[in-house]
Amino acid sequence: MDLATLMGLVLVIAALFIGILTGGGDFAAFINIPSLFITVVGSIAATMVAHPKDKAFKIVNIMLSTLKEPKLDHVSLIQTMVSFSEKARREGLLSLEENLESIEDPFMKKALQLVVDGTDPDLLRNMMETEMELFEEELDGERAVLESAGAYAPAFGMIGTLIGLIQMLKSLNDPETLGPSMAVALITTLYGAILANGVFLPMAEKIKKRRDILVLEKRMILEAVLSIQAGENPRILEEKLKSFLPEKERQAYEAASQEATA
Amino acid sequence: MDLATLMGLVLVIAALFIGILTGGGDFAAFINIPSLFITVVGSIAATMVAHPKDKAFKIVNIMLSTLKEPKLDHVSLIQTMVSFSEKARREGLLSLEENLESIEDPFMKKALQLVVDGTDPDLLRNMMETEMELFEEELDGERAVLESAGAYAPAFGMIGTLIGLIQMLKSLNDPETLGPSMAVALITTLYGAILANGVFLPMAEKIKKRRDILVLEKRMILEAVLSIQAGENPRILEEKLKSFLPEKERQAYEAASQEATA
Amino acid sequence: MDLATLMGLVLVIAALFIGILTGGGDFAAFINIPSLFITVVGSIAATMVAHPKDKAFKIVNIMLSTLKEPKLDHVSLIQTMVSFSEKARREGLLSLEENLESIEDPFMKKALQLVVDGTDPDLLRNMMETEMELFEEELDGERAVLESAGAYAPAFGMIGTLIGLIQMLKSLNDPETLGPSMAVALITTLYGAILANGVFLPMAEKIKKRRDILVLEKRMILEAVLSIQAGENPRILEEKLKSFLPEKERQAYEAASQEATA
Amino acid sequence: MDLATLMGLVLVIAALFIGILTGGGDFAAFINIPSLFITVVGSIAATMVAHPKDKAFKIVNIMLSTLKEPKLDHVSLIQTMVSFSEKARREGLLSLEENLESIEDPFMKKALQLVVDGTDPDLLRNMMETEMELFEEELDGERAVLESAGAYAPAFGMIGTLIGLIQMLKSLNDPETLGPSMAVALITTLYGAILANGVFLPMAEKIKKRRDILVLEKRMILEAVLSIQAGENPRILEEKLKSFLPEKERQAYEAASQEATA
Amino acid sequence: MDLATLMGLVLVIAALFIGILTGGGDFAAFINIPSLFITVVGSIAATMVAHPKDKAFKIVNIMLSTLKEPKLDHVSLIQTMVSFSEKARREGLLSLEENLESIEDPFMKKALQLVVDGTDPDLLRNMMETEMELFEEELDGERAVLESAGAYAPAFGMIGTLIGLIQMLKSLNDPETLGPSMAVALITTLYGAILANGVFLPMAEKIKKRRDILVLEKRMILEAVLSIQAGENPRILEEKLKSFLPEKERQAYEAASQEATA
Repeated sequence: MDLATLMGLVLVIAALFIGILTGGGDFAAFINIPSLFITVVGSIAATMVAHPKDKAFKIVNIMLSTLKEPKLDHVSLIQTMVSFSEKARREGLLSLEENLESIEDPFMKKALQLVVDGTDPDLLRNMMETEMELFEEELDGERAVLESAGAYAPAFGMIGTLIGLIQMLKSLNDPETLGPSMAVALITTLYGAILANGVFLPMAEKIKKRRDILVLEKRMILEAVLSIQAGENPRILEEKLKSFLPEKERQAYEAASQEATA
Repeated sequence: MDLATLMGLVLVIAALFIGILTGGGDFAAFINIPSLFITVVGSIAATMVAHPKDKAFKIVNIMLSTLKEPKLDHVSLIQTMVSFSEKARREGLLSLEENLESIEDPFMKKALQLVVDGTDPDLLRNMMETEMELFEEELDGERAVLESAGAYAPAFGMIGTLIGLIQMLKSLNDPETLGPSMAVALITTLYGAILANGVFLPMAEKIKKRRDILVLEKRMILEAVLSIQAGENPRILEEKLKSFLPEKERQAYEAASQEATA
Repeated sequence: MDLATLMGLVLVIAALFIGILTGGGDFAAFINIPSLFITVVGSIAATMVAHPKDKAFKIVNIMLSTLKEPKLDHVSLIQTMVSFSEKARREGLLSLEENLESIEDPFMKKALQLVVDGTDPDLLRNMMETEMELFEEELDGERAVLESAGAYAPAFGMIGTLIGLIQMLKSLNDPETLGPSMAVALITTLYGAILANGVFLPMAEKIKKRRDILVLEKRMILEAVLSIQAGENPRILEEKLKSFLPEKERQAYEAASQEATA
Repeated sequence: MDLATLMGLVLVIAALFIGILTGGGDFAAFINIPSLFITVVGSIAATMVAHPKDKAFKIVNIMLSTLKEPKLDHVSLIQTMVSFSEKARREGLLSLEENLESIEDPFMKKALQLVVDGTDPDLLRNMMETEMELFEEELDGERAVLESAGAYAPAFGMIGTLIGLIQMLKSLNDPETLGPSMAVALITTLYGAILANGVFLPMAEKIKKRRDILVLEKRMILEAVLSIQAGENPRILEEKLKSFLPEKERQAYEAASQEATA
Repeated sequence: MDLATLMGLVLVIAALFIGILTGGGDFAAFINIPSLFITVVGSIAATMVAHPKDKAFKIVNIMLSTLKEPKLDHVSLIQTMVSFSEKARREGLLSLEENLESIEDPFMKKALQLVVDGTDPDLLRNMMETEMELFEEELDGERAVLESAGAYAPAFGMIGTLIGLIQMLKSLNDPETLGPSMAVALITTLYGAILANGVFLPMAEKIKKRRDILVLEKRMILEAVLSIQAGENPRILEEKLKSFLPEKERQAYEAASQEATA
C-alpha cells in the first residue's frame, strides 16, 4: 500500500467535505449526474482517442497501480549481489544456476540467466538496456494516459459549463432561476478541476517519480551482474553499489553488514 | 480500424449529447453555422499559414489516418527475421534475394535489398537511419499540423465570441435580447473547445504514440538485418529481438515458437 | 509565392468577415484606431526590447519572407551532385572549378570551392557545419522575433482592455454608455487575439518548419561534397542522397533518371 | 540564514499588509479558516498523491531548508585542495590519511578516503559521479515537491471559490448577501495565489539555483581529488580550480594567496 | 547604448499614453500608489525568495545592463587573431607576451597568457571551456531573475485585484461606489501586466539573445587561440573564423582586408 497516495486522496476528500460543510453543508447541491457524465466520459473518451488501445483501456488499472507501493529493499539487494559475486568467484559463474530459481525479480533473473548461459558481456548489456528502455517507455506510456486525462478533464468541465450557460442564457426570462441554473453549470467546471488536480495529475506525477526509483534499481542490478560476470572483486562491487544509496540507507546497510559479520 | 480512436470519438459525442439532453434537449440552440465557420475555417487557415503546403493541405487525411490502426505483428516479424538469418547462414546472403518479392514492409525490403547488393554495413546503417529519421520527421510534421489546429481552434473560438460580445454590447438597448445574444456568442467558444479537446489534440497525441511504436519496429528490423549481414548466430538474433518485446508478447512468441517446433 | 501562407491569410480574413457580417455587418464597430495603436505598437515595442537590433528592426521583412517559398528541387540537386561526382572521378577534383561559376546556392558553392582549394576534409566539414549552425541560428532568431510579437500582442490587447475598463468604471454614472464603452474596451483584446493567432504565431511556426527543410537540404549537400572529395563511387553517393528523399520524391527522381538514361 | 529568502518573505507579507491597509484595513475580512483549510490541505494532499512518501511527508522541512544558506567558501576550498596536492607530492598519497579526520564535507571526505585506499581512478570517478547524480536527484525531488504544491495551490484555491459560488448561486434570494458571499468565495482564490506565488514557487526556484551552485562545488572537489591522485603539479591544479571561480572570487582568492605568501 | 531596448521602452510608454489619452486623458485615474507597491514590492520580494542573494539584490543593475550594448567587432577580432597567428609563426609563441598588455577582452587575454605560459593544449581548452560555461551560467542567472520577476508581477497584480475586489464586495451597500472601487482594483492587474510584458520579460529575452552572441564570440576566440598554439597556417585560421560570420559581416571583413592589403 502506498501510504502517501492513500492519505493524499483521503485528505483531498476531507478538504472538499470541510469546504462544503462550512458553506452550509448542502451536499446534494454538489451532486449532478449529467455533469459527472460529461466530465468523466468526456475526458476518458478524449484519452482513448489520444492513446494506443492497450494503454487507454487500462486507465482504471493504471490509477489503482498508484496505490500499490513497489517493494524496494536496497540493503538485501546489495547483500544478495555481493553473495552472488563471492560465490561466482569461488565456484565459477555456472554455480549461480542453482540460485536462479529463488530470484523473484524478473529483470535480475534474466540478467543472471544470461550470465550463466555464457552470453557475451556487450550483448548482455545491450539486451538488458533494451529491456530497461522498454520498461521506462511502459511507465511513461501509463503516465501519459493520466496526464492526458488530467488535461482533458478541466477542458470537458469547461465544455459542460458552456453548454449549461448557453441553455441558461437562451431562456433568460425568469431571473429567479438564473442563480440555480448558473450553479448547475459551474458544477461541471468544479468536477473537472477536482478530477484533474486531485486525482489524474498527482497520480501521473507519482508514476513518474516511481519510474525514476525503479530504473535506478535496475541500473544497480545491471551494474552488479556485469561486475559479477567480469569477475570483479566483491568488495569493489559492494562499494560501487553503496554509492547508489542515499546516506540513510547506506547507514542501514552498514548496520546490517556488521550484524551479519558479528 | 483503430478501435480506441473510434470509441473515443463516439463517446465524446455521447457526452455532449447527454449534456444537452439533460439541460432541456434544445439541440437547435447549439447549432450556429457562422460560429462553426469562424472556428473551423479560422483554425485551419492559421494552420495553413503555419505549415508547409504538402502537410497543411492534407489535414483531413491526417485526421482520418488516426482511425486506421497500423498492422504490427512482432511475433511473425521475429520468426521471419530468424528464418532469414538461418537461411543466410546455410545458403549465403545472396539466397535472400528470392524472398525480397514477398516482403511487404518497404523498410525491411530496402534494408534486405541493400544486404543482397553487398552494401557496406556502415553505409547500410547510415542509409537506413536516415530513412528512419525522415519517417519520424514525416509523422512529427503530421502531428504538428494537428497540434497547431488544436491550439488555434480555441483561439478562434474566443475571437468569434469577442466579435459576438462587441456587437451585442454596441446595441445594448433591449435587455430581452441580451441573454440569447450572449448565448450565440458563447457557442463559438464551445465549438473551439470541443474541436481542440475532443478532436485535434487527442488525434495529435495518438500520432505521437504511434510514431514511437513504429520507430521501435523499424529499430528491430534494422538490428535484425545488420545481424543477418554480420552472419551472427540466429539464436543470438532471436534473443536480441525478444528483448524488444513487452512481457506479454514475449510469452506469445514463445508459445508460437513451441508450436512451430512441436 | 508560398501558396499555403497566402491562402491561410486570406481565409483568416474571410472567417472574420463572415463572423461580422452574420452578426449584423456593422464593420465600423470593429475599427478603433487607438486600440490598433496600443496592440500593434505595444507588441512591436516589447519585441524591440526583447531582441537584438538587427533582428527587431526587420520584423516586417521577416513577416514578408513567410510569403516567399524557398526553391527546393531535390531531383536536380541529386543529379547535379552525381554528375559532379562522376566528373571528379574522371577528370580530378580540380576539374570542378569550371562548374563553380554556374552554381547559385552559396552553401554548395563555398563547399565545392573548398574542395577545389584542396582543403583538408575534417576542416571542410568543420567549417561547413559552423556555417549550417549559423544559418539555423539566423532563422531561429527570426522565428523568435515573431514568437515574441505573438506572445506580447494578446498581452497588450489585455492591457488596452484594462485601460478601457478602468476609464469606463471610473465614470459609471450613465448606464446607457456602459455597453458601448465596454465594446470599445474589448476591441483591443480582439485585435491582440487576431494578430497573435492569425498572423504572428502561425508565421513563426512556418519559419521553424522551413528551417528544418532547408537544413536537411544543406545536410544533403555537405554529405555529397564530402563524398565527392573522398572519391566515393557516384552510385553510392546517389543511394545515400536518395535515402534523404520521401517516397514520392524518390519515385520522381527515378522517373527522371530513367528519362535521362533513355 | 539565507538573507534573500527571509527578506523576500517579509516583503511579501509587507506588500499584502499595505494592500489591505490602504483599502480600509479590515484585516478580519481576509481571514477565513475553511478557505485556508481547503487551500493548504488540498494542495498538500495532492502533493502527497504525487510524490514518494519520503519526500511528500517532509514538505515543511524542505520549506525550512530554503531559509538556511549552505556554507560555501571557495577560497579556502582551493587552498585546502592545493595544500593536499603539495603534501601528497612530498609525502605520498597515504600521508593524506591523517587529514581525513578534520574534513567536514562528506563528499570530499569520501573521495579522499578512496584515494588513500588506493582505488582505481576510473572506479573512483565512476563512484563519485554516481554520488553527485544522487545528490542532484535528491534536490530535484525536493524541488519537485514544492513545484507540485505551487501548481495545486491555485487549483484548490479555484476549487474552493467554485464551491463558494455554487452555494451562493443556489440561494440567490437575498441580493444583500450576494456581495459578502462572493467576497468569501474569492478569499480561497486569493489564498491559493499567495501560497503559490509568494511561498511554494519561489522556494522551489531557490532550491534549483542552490543545486546548481552545490553541484559546481562538488565538481571542483572531484576535479581536484582526481588531479591529486594523478600526481599533477599543484600549480596546474590551482589554475584549474581558479577557472571555476567568478571574477570577484578569483580576486579574493589571489588577495588571500598573496597574504599567505607574504 | 542599446538602441532597440531604449526605443522599445519609449514606444511601450507611448502606446500606453495614447491609449489613456484617447479614452479621455484622465491620467490621474491610472496612478495608485498602493497598487504600485503591491505589484513592484510583491514581485521583487518573490524574486528574492527565488534567487541567490548575489543575483536577487542586483535586479536593478541587471535591468540597466540591457540598455548597454556590448561592443562586438568581429572584423577587427579576426584581424587581430590572424596577426597574432602570423607573429607567432614568425617569432614564436613567446613573442605574443608583448601584445598581452594591449588586449582588453579578459577572456582573450587569459587564453593567450596560458599559451605564452606554455600550458598544455588540452588543459587550456578545458580551462577556457569551464570559463565559458561559468559565463553562460552567470548570464542565465541574470536572465532567470528577470524571468521570475516577469512571472510574479502578473500574479501579484491579480493578488492586489483580489484584495480590492474582496474589500469592495464586503461593503456592497452603495452602488455608486461600485464602479470606481472596481476600477481601483483593476489597476493592480494593469500594473502587473505592464511590468511583465513591457519590462521584465522582454529584458529577460534580450539577455538570452545577448548571451548567444557573446558565447559565439568566445568560441571564435578559443578556436583562434588553439589554432595559434598548434601553429596552424594563418590562412586556415582566417577561413575558420570567417565561417563564423554572417554573410554581411563576411563582406565587410573582405572589404577591410583588401583595403589593408592595398
